[in-house]
Formats: sequence, structure tokens, C-alpha cells
Amino acid sequence: MGNVTIRILARELQLSAATVSKALADSHEISQSTKKRVLEMAAALNYTPNPYASSLRRKKSNTIAVVLPEVADSFFSQAIDGIEAIAQDKGYHVLVCLTHERALKEQAILHEMLGGRADGILISSCSETTDPSSILELQEKGVPVVFFDRICEELDTAKVVTDDRNSAYKATDHLIRSGCREIAFLTISENLSISHERIEGYKHALDERGIKFKMTDIIPCTHHAEDNIHLLKKILGKKDHPDGIIASVEKLAVQVYQACHELGLKIPEDVKVIGFSNLVTASLLNPSLTTITQPAFEMGRAAATLLFKALGNKGADLSQVVIPSELQVRDSTG
Amino acid sequence: MGNVTIRILARELQLSAATVSKALADSHEISQSTKKRVLEMAAALNYTPNPYASSLRRKKSNTIAVVLPEVADSFFSQAIDGIEAIAQDKGYHVLVCLTHERALKEQAILHEMLGGRADGILISSCSETTDPSSILELQEKGVPVVFFDRICEELDTAKVVTDDRNSAYKATDHLIRSGCREIAFLTISENLSISHERIEGYKHALDERGIKFKMTDIIPCTHHAEDNIHLLKKILGKKDHPDGIIASVEKLAVQVYQACHELGLKIPEDVKVIGFSNLVTASLLNPSLTTITQPAFEMGRAAATLLFKALGNKGADLSQVVIPSELQVRDSTG
Repeated sequence: MGNVTIRILARELQLSAATVSKALADSHEISQSTKKRVLEMAAALNYTPNPYASSLRRKKSNTIAVVLPEVADSFFSQAIDGIEAIAQDKGYHVLVCLTHERALKEQAILHEMLGGRADGILISSCSETTDPSSILELQEKGVPVVFFDRICEELDTAKVVTDDRNSAYKATDHLIRSGCREIAFLTISENLSISHERIEGYKHALDERGIKFKMTDIIPCTHHAEDNIHLLKKILGKKDHPDGIIASVEKLAVQVYQACHELGLKIPEDVKVIGFSNLVTASLLNPSLTTITQPAFEMGRAAATLLFKALGNKGADLSQVVIPSELQVRDSTG
Repeated sequence: MGNVTIRILARELQLSAATVSKALADSHEISQSTKKRVLEMAAALNYTPNPYASSLRRKKSNTIAVVLPEVADSFFSQAIDGIEAIAQDKGYHVLVCLTHERALKEQAILHEMLGGRADGILISSCSETTDPSSILELQEKGVPVVFFDRICEELDTAKVVTDDRNSAYKATDHLIRSGCREIAFLTISENLSISHERIEGYKHALDERGIKFKMTDIIPCTHHAEDNIHLLKKILGKKDHPDGIIASVEKLAVQVYQACHELGLKIPEDVKVIGFSNLVTASLLNPSLTTITQPAFEMGRAAATLLFKALGNKGADLSQVVIPSELQVRDSTG
């Protein structure tokens, strides 16, 4: 196709294809005025000697995009590995685009994707307020979209999740069995699908054991470590502080440890801690951290598999895959 | 420019611009045969109604690419944050492309970048064997390239590094002062610029204290955790095992902890450990990990700043920025 376009340029300019080709390569054999004419015509006819152009013609970029809140989180970095394992097999590149939990940034990225930058999108949303219009536009353009972990319930897309509600139930039940009666639940965004599910599981376990749910036990945290540690120290510094903490986000578990260390509180004697976390260092922390370990790699792999299925079929795949998480009991609840 | 191209299509096809426009939009008002003619001509003339096309015309993608070995490493994830802080200010998107330490993958990504996918490239190389031809081609095309952390010494590009040699010197000196005499140095790729620099610093400190350098104390590790832990257990299981370990890569420090835990060896009593690491959990490990903490965020920011300077000036920027690392003494060498 590249040759055809050079031939068309040549015809329009009444030059030989060789001359056009040399002019485009900025050859010293071609005069400045001819180069100028060739470049002007190339611009007018939208000629580009660019691999992207061939991608556009083929409508294929051989790239999938992964839209994520962040990578400084073991779940997401392991999920990326799972996604890349599949993409590699298919000869695709993976672009990682970070939203930093900002809906506007997410929208800008999705909007960019309308330009054919990727053949398909995997997304873990930064909030439930994902602008459905960008997703719908992508789907209309035949760009399949698969959500994983943090999904958007209203949208008809393929989805890969873990059993968030049941995992939070297991975590809460484990703390109650370990003797906790006042269990705080730390969350970052109550609006996320997964936060909602996890809070439901937490409530369910409390309810089953006859412990009254209190709205004040849901602790809304932020993305700023210092703010969270300040808040946690305030809560844990009280005489009647919680005796159990569920950190529904990996980095919050680390911040609970930091707050406890600073206050001189002992884990698990003074407060028991359980985190939704894929930290490789969980077993090496002081004390080792009890975790709900999500099947991050498998979720990434499953999401990519659904995406490539959709890319192959060109039909919208609306599968929903649920892969269970695992409670790993360690010393922080012992 | 979009209109011009539709007009040119229309002229070539001897149709009205409105008809061409409707045909491209797959309007029911236009016959199948006309649509076919329009699409064929659009393909032949390389017409595309695509935002990418306008990027190509402007030669601007408003995107920078970050080419990295991996993200499951605190240094790289913090460096990305530094890069994004600058890119955000400039209204640029950041694409993260992972090489997984494979030179072929890195080459494929750089080759893709020749297509105008990004206006500039930040790279932390997977090995010293970075194919210079791709980098040179990018530079010739006016796509600036800035190396950070893992640089390629032979290439004339802007570079941002930390004081690797001096940091390793400080780490080794600290272990010797803490009583170590048999210090193993764990490395992943001896061919990397930073490995080379770090080994030189290590040798220098040994030399200054009259400790003979032994090639067998340089332990080449792999990217496979199980293999490394197996190797470490073999080395640490010997009666005359090293009394000090420098892990020149973050994940190797974690693997030393795992091997010691499995063998029942006590850190720091049986073996002292120091890691090049930006782990936020370093202070929470059991025992807390002494680290050489690199200025990851600042290095990312500095690299992005150099890149935008080059994008503004269109001249090759050959600055070399060195930002010092910090020795943070904790209990693992105590």
C-alpha cells in the first residue's frame, strides 16, 4: 500500500516515484524546491510513510490498552503480568495508561483510545462514575472493552471480578472468631463497585454474629498516605479504639502498620489487622499480615482472554467471570 | 485538514463532498456500490477520519512513552509518578511499555515508537545491549530519547542517574563497619550500566578496608523468584555462608528474607542484609530493612523535564543529571 501512495503522489506531482521517494527521504540528490512541492502534496493528500498509517488501513494497531488507577499496588502489577502473558502469545503490545483515580483523566484516556490507538481496552475503573459515553463510543467503533476488578455495573461489557462480597464476609468472620467485636472497615472510595460489595459482605458477617453495624465503623480514607496515617492515629489513639481492622485496599494495610508502630500499639495484641493485598512482603512484615489474596495474575489473564475472544469474533462478549480470592491467615490476626 | 481530504476524495471520485462524507459515515442514503468506490479511493489515498491522522499531520501525539523493565518494583512505580507529575502539567499522556527485561521486546517497542506513537521516549534499559539503531533512528526522526537509571553509556542522549558507585560503596562500607567480612553481592544482570557501577563501588570499599575481592562473591541471580531462593538457600545453608549481603535489586532483598526465614537464619545476627530498594514496607519488615533508597520520584521528574526541554527546543539535549541516593540504616544491619 505504501508504494501505491507514493505512486499517487508521483502522478499528482508529475514526478517519478523514485524522485518522490528520494524527496521524502530528504535525499541530497533532490532540489529544495522539489522537496518542498513533494512535502506539500504529501500533506495535502495525507500521505504518511508511517507504520501507524498501515495500522489505520488495516484498522489494527496490534496493541491493547490497560487503563488502571495505579501500578504501585501489587494487585495491579500482578494483573498486568497476567495480561501480558496472553498478549505476548498473540503478538500484541500492551500499553499501560494510569488514571491516578481521577475520573477526568480516565475520560481523557478513553477518549484518546477512540483514535485507534488500541484494538481493545482492559479497564479497572477509577470510580463508578466511569463516563459510559466513551465506553459506548468505543464499542460502537468495534473496540471491545473488558472490565476487571473494578467494574461498572451499568455497562454491558465483559467483566472479570473476584468474589468481593464473600471475601469480605470471610475476613470479618475470621476477625470475629479471633475475638474482635469492634471492627473498623477502611475504604478509599465507597462508590466503587468492589467497595460496595465488600461492605455488604462485612455487614452480612456482623449481622450473622449479632454485632450491630455502625456507619461510623466505615472509615473513608484518601489517596494521601499522610492524611490516612493522621486519621488512623486519631482513631487508634482513642481508649475504645477498634480491636480489628479490615483494610480493603493494599496500601491502607501498610498505613495501619505505620500508625500502630508510631502509636506503640501491638499487632495483633492491641488490634488485629487483615488486608486485601497481594504484597509479596505480606509474610515478611512485622508481624506477618493476614490477607485476602486476590487472584491478580489469573484475573488479568482471564480479562485478556475475553478481550482477544471479542477481537476474534467482533461480537460483543458479555461474559462475566468470577475467580475466588483466598484468606491467608498469618500473625496479624493470630 | 479533514475537509480538504474529503474534497480531494470527492474530486478524484467526481462526487460531491457531501456524498463522500455520507458514504464514509455509512449513511443509508448512499448506495452500496458508491460506498464501495468511496472506501476504495479513501484507502488508496490513505484518507482517514481519525484523530491519529491529525496527530500525524501535526507530528504530535501529545504522548510520551516510558519504556521500563517492569512495574512490580517500587523504584519504577515511583519514577512513573514523577514522570506523570511533569507530563500532567504539560497536558501530555504517558504510555507505559514493559520490556520484562527482554532485549527483543525492548527493540520491538522502540521500533513501534518510530511510528509517531509518542513525541518523546523515556527509557530505563533492560540491558546494556540496547539496540542503538532504534534509538538513533528515533533521534533522527526528531523524537528525543532520555535514559534514566539504567542508561546506555555508548549512546549520546540525555541521562538521569543516581550515584550508583558511591551508593554501593556506602552500603559495603556500612556492612564492614557492622562487622561483616564475607559480603556477597547479588545482581541480576552484570551487563547493566548500574550493575557495573555498583560492583565497582563494592570493590572499592572492600579494597579500602583490605578485604580481598572474590569473583565468587558476586552472585548472579535471575528473574525467577524460585530459582533465586533456591540458590540463596544453597549459599546461606553452608557453614561458612556470607555474613553480609547486598541485594542490588529490590526483589532480591525480599528473596534473601524469604530464604533466611525458610532456613531459620536470623537477620541481622546470622547475616546482615542491605537492599537497593524503595519499598514502602522496608521499615515494617521483620526486621526492618536497611536500604539504599533511590530518589525515584525525583529521577522520573528530572528525566521528564529533560524530555520536555528537548521537545521544546527540538535540539538534542545531552545533559547528564546525577541525583544522590540515601543510605537508610535500619535493623537488618543493626
